[in-house]
Amino acid sequence: MKHIVANIYADLPKQGPDELFQTLLAKENIKIERIISRGHACRTDEWYDQQQDEWVMLIKGQAKLQYKSNATIILLNPGDYIYIPAHTKHRVHWTAPEMETIWLAIHIFPNENTHD
Amino acid sequence: MKHIVANIYADLPKQGPDELFQTLLAKENIKIERIISRGHACRTDEWYDQQQDEWVMLIKGQAKLQYKSNATIILLNPGDYIYIPAHTKHRVHWTAPEMETIWLAIHIFPNENTHD
Repeated sequence: MKHIVANIYADLPKQGPDELFQTLLAKENIKIERIISRGHACRTDEWYDQQQDEWVMLIKGQAKLQYKSNATIILLNPGDYIYIPAHTKHRVHWTAPEMETIWLAIHIFPNENTHD
Repeated sequence: MKHIVANIYADLPKQGPDELFQTLLAKENIKIERIISRGHACRTDEWYDQQQDEWVMLIKGQAKLQYKSNATIILLNPGDYIYIPAHTKHRVHWTAPEMETIWLAIHIFPNENTHD
């Protein structure tokens, strides 16, 4: 059996105008994802409203996350992690424009469902 | 609702002779864990044989992981991640002695079970 090591900082694809989402593992009801941003942000009226819980860590770069409930804006630096329960409306307010921001997101779907 | 940010590099507890395991999130059938090593290794005859799948990333430091099946030893540097299916016997062969090694481990238990 081959044991494959990959690196979260490596093989950053050429980036167009959109954020990049790459599934690192999809298993049972969870999905582990690498997200690469470079100056990307959601529109001011664009809110994520997810059916699944998300645990997300900022690996590299810098970002600001906004919550709809109280308009709080949270600055995230490398190593910062946060738990976003399902249906907690949030958006990416800002990401550093001059470098890649790398996120690690763990999506936890309800047990009765499977991920996409 | 309060949105709590924590940092994977922060609040490293004083370390005794053992590795430290801290649960960052336990939800549905998954457990997200921070593991801190400092020169720790398993005994040469000590193998993890887990009922759950594990996805693990080395955040900081350096480590060597060994698999029983083929005696392969894998060097892990920051950002390296690897998927360890359930019942893949493995051990920590070495961790850097002069600094903390921080791991992020995602344990994925079979859907019918819950984590400890």
